[in-house]
This record gives sequence, C-alpha cells and structure tokens, in this order.
Amino acid sequence: MNVPYLYHGQDPFWVDVCEHSLNLTMVSDTDSPIAALFIRCEPDNEEKLIEMERGNKLGRLQYWHGQLPLNQDQPITHYCFKVMLSQRQWWLHSQGISPRIPGREAHFKYNRHDQPPAWIKQQVFYQIFPDRFNNGDPNISVTSDEYCLRGDTRPTIAKQWGDYVSPHGQNGPNEFFGGDLQGIHDKLDYLQNLGVTALYLNPIFTAPSNHKYDTTDYRQIDPHLGTNAQFATMVEDIHQRGMKIMLDAVYNHTSVNHPWFDMYGKQTDVAGAYGNPHSVYRNYYQFSDNSNDYVGWNGIATLPKLNFSNPEVQDYIYAGDEAVIKYWLRPPYNIDGWRFDVIHMLGEGAGATNNAHYVKAFRDAAKQTNPDCFVLGEHFFEATQWLQGDQEDGAMNYYGFAHPIRAFFANKDIAYHSCQIDAADLVQWLNEARSKIPWLNQLAQLNQLDSHDTMRFLTMLEGDNDTMRLALQMLFTYVGTPCVYYGTEVGLEGGQDPDNRRCFPWERIEGNKSKHPLFDYIQQLITIRRNEPALQTGSMQWLYANHQQLAFARHLGDDQVICLLNNHPHAREVTIPVWQLGMKDAVLIDLLTHDEWIAKNGEFTITLAGKEGLILKVINE
Amino acid sequence: MNVPYLYHGQDPFWVDVCEHSLNLTMVSDTDSPIAALFIRCEPDNEEKLIEMERGNKLGRLQYWHGQLPLNQDQPITHYCFKVMLSQRQWWLHSQGISPRIPGREAHFKYNRHDQPPAWIKQQVFYQIFPDRFNNGDPNISVTSDEYCLRGDTRPTIAKQWGDYVSPHGQNGPNEFFGGDLQGIHDKLDYLQNLGVTALYLNPIFTAPSNHKYDTTDYRQIDPHLGTNAQFATMVEDIHQRGMKIMLDAVYNHTSVNHPWFDMYGKQTDVAGAYGNPHSVYRNYYQFSDNSNDYVGWNGIATLPKLNFSNPEVQDYIYAGDEAVIKYWLRPPYNIDGWRFDVIHMLGEGAGATNNAHYVKAFRDAAKQTNPDCFVLGEHFFEATQWLQGDQEDGAMNYYGFAHPIRAFFANKDIAYHSCQIDAADLVQWLNEARSKIPWLNQLAQLNQLDSHDTMRFLTMLEGDNDTMRLALQMLFTYVGTPCVYYGTEVGLEGGQDPDNRRCFPWERIEGNKSKHPLFDYIQQLITIRRNEPALQTGSMQWLYANHQQLAFARHLGDDQVICLLNNHPHAREVTIPVWQLGMKDAVLIDLLTHDEWIAKNGEFTITLAGKEGLILKVINE
Repeated sequence: MNVPYLYHGQDPFWVDVCEHSLNLTMVSDTDSPIAALFIRCEPDNEEKLIEMERGNKLGRLQYWHGQLPLNQDQPITHYCFKVMLSQRQWWLHSQGISPRIPGREAHFKYNRHDQPPAWIKQQVFYQIFPDRFNNGDPNISVTSDEYCLRGDTRPTIAKQWGDYVSPHGQNGPNEFFGGDLQGIHDKLDYLQNLGVTALYLNPIFTAPSNHKYDTTDYRQIDPHLGTNAQFATMVEDIHQRGMKIMLDAVYNHTSVNHPWFDMYGKQTDVAGAYGNPHSVYRNYYQFSDNSNDYVGWNGIATLPKLNFSNPEVQDYIYAGDEAVIKYWLRPPYNIDGWRFDVIHMLGEGAGATNNAHYVKAFRDAAKQTNPDCFVLGEHFFEATQWLQGDQEDGAMNYYGFAHPIRAFFANKDIAYHSCQIDAADLVQWLNEARSKIPWLNQLAQLNQLDSHDTMRFLTMLEGDNDTMRLALQMLFTYVGTPCVYYGTEVGLEGGQDPDNRRCFPWERIEGNKSKHPLFDYIQQLITIRRNEPALQTGSMQWLYANHQQLAFARHLGDDQVICLLNNHPHAREVTIPVWQLGMKDAVLIDLLTHDEWIAKNGEFTITLAGKEGLILKVINE
Repeated sequence: MNVPYLYHGQDPFWVDVCEHSLNLTMVSDTDSPIAALFIRCEPDNEEKLIEMERGNKLGRLQYWHGQLPLNQDQPITHYCFKVMLSQRQWWLHSQGISPRIPGREAHFKYNRHDQPPAWIKQQVFYQIFPDRFNNGDPNISVTSDEYCLRGDTRPTIAKQWGDYVSPHGQNGPNEFFGGDLQGIHDKLDYLQNLGVTALYLNPIFTAPSNHKYDTTDYRQIDPHLGTNAQFATMVEDIHQRGMKIMLDAVYNHTSVNHPWFDMYGKQTDVAGAYGNPHSVYRNYYQFSDNSNDYVGWNGIATLPKLNFSNPEVQDYIYAGDEAVIKYWLRPPYNIDGWRFDVIHMLGEGAGATNNAHYVKAFRDAAKQTNPDCFVLGEHFFEATQWLQGDQEDGAMNYYGFAHPIRAFFANKDIAYHSCQIDAADLVQWLNEARSKIPWLNQLAQLNQLDSHDTMRFLTMLEGDNDTMRLALQMLFTYVGTPCVYYGTEVGLEGGQDPDNRRCFPWERIEGNKSKHPLFDYIQQLITIRRNEPALQTGSMQWLYANHQQLAFARHLGDDQVICLLNNHPHAREVTIPVWQLGMKDAVLIDLLTHDEWIAKNGEFTITLAGKEGLILKVINE
C-alpha cells in the first residue's frame, strides 16, 4: 500500500485569496496514478466536491489547482482534499494523510473576517517582568516597610539587585528589586541590538505586589514603576524605533486592596464592597448574600473575581467610552496590543459562564479603538475554542508549542512530571494543535520556551546549553511569533515561580553585548528569522521525524529554508526527501556558519552531530 | 516501550453519577508499575488533576477510583486520565492511549443537562417510506393524472405494486405505488414479530410528490396516506403495543405549491409569495427584492427555503403555542420524536446562518411539549457540533456508523467512490466519531446501514449475503440505536435514489415470516439485542483489530458480550485478550448457535471461518 505524496501549504502560493473565493493549489508526486482530485468543502454545512485541474509538473511533483468559494453563512471556510486512485482514495488534511474523510477539526481553515494584524508575524517579542529587568530610577523604588500588602501584614522588603529571590511561601509578592519603566527605556538600545522588535510587559498598573496581578488602579502606572506620562514617552520612543509594545490586562480579578473591594477599610469616602453589603461596589464582585464570602480567582481569597454580569463592570472594563481596554490603546499611550490574563476563566460566577461572550466583547472593544491592535489570550492549555478568529488573534502558545517542546527536549510536562515523546509524537502534537485553528491565527500564536509562570527552560535542561540551542532553533523557525523571556540571552537560570523571576544579570553584559554563548546564538537566530520571510509567514512542511531527529521546511513561494535537528547526544545520519520541495540538485547554505551542502537527485543525506541543529537556505541549481 | 493496559468505560459501572460529581472507575494491568494516576479535568477551563485511589485487584486488573466534581459553569464535564510511571506518563482518553495530553475533542464527556430520553436506547427502529411499504386502503391511492406536481406538468402516475421504479431523471416524484397509513397499521403484527419496537416514517404530511419532502400543509396527513384521525388511532395502537413512532420534520423548505408560496397561482383567497412582492407571505421565503429570484434548498428551485428570521415562520414552526413541532407531539397524535430533515442547512439566507440558534429553539419547543421526546437530526456528514447535548439527542449516524461500515464492508464511500480501510482504520474512525460527543448521545445515535437516501447495502455488496450478515451484526451490537430500512429483512435490493425505494415484496412473506435467510438472522439479532442490556447501553471495548478481523466487548457491570468477526473470505485465527475483561477461565456461549467455547488463562483463541461473525456471552467460571 503506497501512500501517495500529497501536500498543501497555506501561504499565498497555495491559498490565493480572492474576493469571494480561494484559488487553491496542491501537489502530488508524479508516480501516483491519481484519477481525480477534489476540494472537499461545506458551503452550507453539506459536502460539496470541487474537482481540481492538473497543473504544471516540476521534477517529481504534479501541481493541481481549483477554486473554492468562500462560505457565506459562517466566518470560517474549511476544506480538505479527496484524492481518487482507481481502487481507493486518500484524503489530505491539516493533520496529514488518511484513507478516509478526516474529522472536522483536521480540515484546513481560512477566516475571512477577524484576522490578526499583519504586523504580528514579523515580530520578535521580549517578555519583561518589570521589577526584575532594570532599575532606571532608584528614587521611586519600593523601600522596606514602605507599605503593607495585606492590612497591617506583609510589609514591603527592598532587596539588593541580584540578591536571591525568596522561595515560594516566604516573602513572595512583597519583596522588591527596583526594576522600573526608566530601566526598560534605558535598555531599548540593548534590546534592539539583540534584535527584539516588540515588548511584552507583565502588569505595570498600580498594585501592591511585585507581580502586579492584583490591580488597585487600572488607569495608573504603578508609581514605583513610573508615571503615565513617562509611559507615554517610552511608547513614543518605542514606536519611533519601529518597535511595538503589548501590556498585560488583568481583568478577571482585582486586589483586595482595590477601592472597589477595600478589604482593610482604607477608603474613607466611599465604602468598598468587602464588609459592606450596601456598598455601591458590592455588585462589582460576587458575594454570597450579605456574608463576607466571595468568589476568588482559582479559590484564592486575595484575588476577588470581578462580576462581569454587572453592567458597571462591563462599562469600566470594555463597554464604556472610557473603558480601560480602550484607554490604553488610545493616545497618548497607543499600546499595540493586550495580553489578557487567565482569559478562559473569566465570566460570571465561580466558573467561566458566558466566557465566549465576554472575550468577544473584549476583542470588539479593542478592535474598535485600534483595528490593528493585537489581542492575545493567556491559556495554559488547549486554546482552540478561543482561536477561531472571532475571539483572540493568538494565544500564549503553551499547548501547541511550549508543552510539546518541553516534552521533547526536557522530558517534562507542564506539571514537571516525567514525560517521553519521540520526534513522531512531537510532530503529531504540533500538527494537531495547529490544524484546529485558521492559518493566520497559527502565525499569530505567541511561542515561548518559558515565562514568568514556568521554570526557566535552561534550568529544566539542568544547564545543558546544547539542547537549549536546539529548543531556541525551534522557537525561531517554527510557525508562530517567537517571544524570549528576559535574560534567556545571557543564560539566566531559575526554578519555578518565583525563582524564575530573578534580576537580570547586567554584569554579564558589556556595552550591548554579552560573552555568554547563548547571546550570539539568539542574536543570529533573530537575524535569520527577520531576514527570511519564509520563517515568518511561510508554510510548514515536515520532511523527517524519527526517534530524536527531525527536519522540516518553511517555504514561501521559491523562498525555502530547511531546519534539521538531532536531539540525540550521538551523531545520526538522516536522508531528507528534498524532491518534495521541488528540488533535484541544489545547494544548501547553512545560515549560521555559511557552510555549503549539496542535495543530489532529490535527496539530501547528512550526518548530524550529537545535539546538532542546522538552518539551511535552499539555492536551487 | 511497553504501553500499559488502561481502560475506562462510560456505563454506570465506570461513571457513577451523583448530584454534584461523578465517581469514576478506571482499570490498569497489574504488571504496569504505575506511580500515580489522576483524573484530569477543567472545572473553570483550567487544568485540575485529581489523584485516584487504588481499588481492588481482579485477575490481572487493578481498579482505580476517584471523584470528579461536575463542571458548574458549562453543561459538559470533560475529563481524561493521566497515568504516571516512574520515568514517563501515559494518557487514557476517548480515542485511546497516548504519551501526552490529548486534544479536547478526545476527552470523555458527560452532559448533566439535556440528556436524550432513556427509552431510546432500548429501541430497534424500522424506517418506512410510506408509498412503498404496504397499500392498506386502495380507495385513497393516487390515481394516474389525478393532479399535476408542477402547474400543469408532471401528472401523477399510478403504478402496480412491485412494478419497477423509474430511474432518476424520469418520472421520479410523480409515480405512486399506493402505500399508506392503513398499510403500515396492518403490518404492526408483522413488525412486532420481527422484533421492531419503533417506527420512523418518511414524511406523511400533505405534499404532491411521492417522497413528500415538499410539504404543502404541515398540519394535515396527506389524504392519499390517510387522515389525521386515522393517524391518531394508529399511534394509539402503536403505544398500546409498547412501541414508539418518530416522524420526519421538513422545515427547511416547502413545496412551491404550498399556499404561502403558490408558484402556480392556484390560491384564490390570499396571494402566495411567488410573483407577489406584496403577498403577506412574501417574507416567509427569501426573495431578492421585487424579483422572482428566491433561495431554494441546495439550489433546487422546486424547494424554496423558509426564512427563519421571520417571526411568523418561527411562530408557525416552533415558537407559537400551536407551532407544528408542538402540535404533533400533543394529544391526540402524541408522536414520540422528530427526525429533522437537513437540519444543518437550516437558518437565514442561502446558507445556514444562525443554525445553532434555530436547532436549539426546535429542541426547546419539542422538549417543552414532551420532555421525553426524541430529537434526531439528519446529517450526511460529521454531526459533532449538533450533538453536545443542547441541540440534538442523536443524529442519523452516517458519519460515525454508515460511512465507516460501508467503507470497511463494501469498499465504497458516501459518493460511491472506491475506498479501502482495514480493521484498525475502522476502529480509529468509529472511535473518533464517538469520542467527540457525550456518552448518552452516543447511545442515542440512529445507526443505519442504508436509508431512502443511499443505495441499499445488500446491493452495494452485490448481493453478498455473508458480508451483509457481518454488517448487520455490527448494526445490532455496536453503540447506538439500530434502525432497519424496510425490506432489508427480506433481502430487498435497490440502487441509488429512487431505486432504493422499491415496493416491499410481500410475496416473500408467509404469515409473519419469510424464508429469506436474512429474515431469521435479523430476527435473531434483534432478540439478542433486546435480551442483552450490555448491547443497548453497555460500554464499548475493542479487543482486537487487525487486517480484516476485529473483536470488541460490550459490557455492563458483570454482563459481558464479545463480538468477533472476520471480514476476509478465508479462515483466520485470532487470539483475544479476554483478561482485559477481568476473565481468566470462562465459558463463552454463542448467542446465535448456543455452541460453547472456552477461554483459558485470560486468552481466547479461535479460528473464524471466512466471513464468520460470532456474538458470545461470557459465563465466568
């Protein structure tokens, strides 16, 4: 049983978008005796088969073309391909090839409406945890005993830059290192030199803790980080540099110290909701009758959940003219996007009732204000349902990137349990996650190896720089927008939260460079990604996946890049069927070393050293 | 890499439903060194792991128990199992076992609300195309030239019972054979003797064609089939026999002869919509401005689509007190369920805009009238999105039964293209389709080998009775409610529509029996299914799938039935790991022949003859 070679990409070479239709191209091998080939679609939820026409041949490839009308009654047009041989059939879909019609989740998807902003695909993000990046203005740093986080307890503690981070369960949220906006602003040259084009800042609005996921004022930059005016100036500079900035939107819950809640009775003018059943803010939260029982995020009492069924909360957050979602997207702040914290958990009641309604409303509010803004959702697990176009542009891609990459390279899952997957499992996982969402949303996923919520990847690898380089290669070559967690470029280590939030070790930097071996490598990877549109928006094609070795191409028309890696500690020979890319004889240039390799007769055989990764640019002969 | 044995069923033995939680049981083999085992759920869209406790051992089986709180913010609680070994992990989900967390579509699903009626699982349905089943009252039969279907064209043609059916494109909808309600009523003894417990009738409301999918009066039985009073009497008899009846609801479109549309200007009192832009019914359909252009179902001009955005249409069909969906569910008619024709295509505009809204509204109208009624949707393709509880109880299960069974046994797909799948492909397809919907909806799927819309299965098999028996064995032993298309039990053949609607060959019946070999076999299968609750509601467990051989168990607590079949024409030996069912030594009784077989040491080896199928009841020693 010979499975034919079949492929369909999703960049404009394969999917040419017209006003009311998509001109689709797919390819088969010339050896397979294909009798007929159909686009399979559902214009009104019922199957329609559209026969494709034979196009050109190129080497061992046969091209096929067909026109798919866009669905009129639903925003997404989904399709797959039915391939008829004389005695049997095959189907090509977004998870691969199968002998029967695939489930709908595996159909290719195109969203004609609600597309992510075009600029997102070109970015390289850098995530900053503000208290730990750089202290630019010691005058505003939190001082010890300056205030208390909980009534009269949990006084602030000021620590020396670079001092250890207290373990979980000790000082935690009340210890401060003094990082601030001026510190970030001062390092824009450094970040630009590294190649970063966009910043994602963890929360910067007024909040008592160091992590600031406990907001007390959604309209003010925390005074220990800077001022609103200073933020506006920084954004202006960022934009003048051609860079972008995304902020963290924490609208699921507030601090217990928020004036609306005011657990400790600090307000004198208007009574907060806690302890005051008749407070005007009582219905901003979710209290049980006249008691002091209320719903906290994830059961955490210090983070009371907002009540989104209350129109006043709706107005304040997203619906009103001056809603905070809109406020920061407008002049003089002009931020480029929002990262919505725990957005899947937000809604009515203890759970997430009517969640989809509110997420859509957040999107609408943001896009009304700036149609070109980026709407990113935080999801620690599968985010498919939020990524069908009408809710989020992209997600923090734990499910479809961080988790599988962690499993493959670090043999750990998200709970730090042992986990073993091979290259074929990895490919199947990555494909499954991508296949369920429209291509443009795949490109707008925010891929990270680690974040302020996970152990640092290098630490998970127990400091193994060789494997770290392979994971970084995946970050900068795979589908989606890469995001580097601050300090990764200088090998900053750190265990689980809060140890993953150590101070940036500026002593490892001289000028705008570092001698740390990862610095040059990341700088090179960023340069390669920015120079190669195929890596930003090109189609994805797996060429090899076996044991611990894998290879894939990203291609955009004739622009082709092949990525290979060997995750085994010993050398392994692999043969890559580059004829599938239309190649017979070709020169492959290593974009990291500029070494040249030769592909002959449609194949490329190479022995990869242990833990070696290559990024090869194709020069067709 | 040894994959552990892991299993979780979904009947009450494995899922014990409490008020706010599910007590879950799963099982592993005692050889696998399991360190910990978790239920993985999402109470608020965020992962929660609940550790399970070790329970009893039984043979080579280790049981595990845990309590899963029901989700509060969404109607479905979905879960899977995470199994920790010392160095790796496995996940058990509704599509099988994998080394990483499965996609959400493959999580087990329990719907606490909107459950199908309990009675549906015990039924054996029989589908009748009324004009072709039996003529009980020749006085009301359509006569030749009695009326015309289209204005002055397409006059009716009366044909002799058993005469050939004119091919597609010839007389088609205007030829009549005289079947009627009295004919059905007269054969209830016959059907009960066969074992049938429920009838599904193709449309019986007033309509000019023989198929009656072109309604002209939703409130009247077609006078050539009988009267409303006669129908009420028949339903009363059906209910007195403990049987059920389901009717066909054709609300997507009407006839062009419906008074609302009145293409041929036959109405004299109130002008129909066609040709009358000012007609009070104009907005019942979807016309382009003042033209005579309108939306027809599937582009077919003779079936104008109703405009569901019109509140008058809503009231008439589902929303008003006297809406037709309610009318027939009430006394004196008291039907037990509706089969909604092309329900996925229904909505606003040419496509199916806001389809989910209307399907929910149909369900609500039906369930308000009779909470115990059955809501079935017709879907020729994947119906997952309609089967999450809040829309349909079940679907005509083409995607999850008819298509895979046709592919495996008849090597054809739904378009009659050649198709080849092996037993493993079949299992993967059946599992995928079931895995995406809640268990109770799986049981409420209406499984058919064929229908009035497909070639008869026996004809697709070119008359091969041996393979037909295997397909029938699947029909009566697989998960879902079986439905026999009239005449199958006497080997009635027929090609594609309309040849699949031949007259019932009553000459093959003597008394209430037939000498046709399929008759006794189907009668036996029905008896077995009705005697074995495990076949009606028991969990499904695959035991073997290789090449053309497969085996599975249905079990309900200690009640276990094992089905085996060999779809190859030659004999094949198979070994079934019955230890997975908790068996060591057991006697297996063939429910068809009463032969006894012995399983020893947890295994059962048997040579199946070519095209042999067995249904074995387990008697544990």
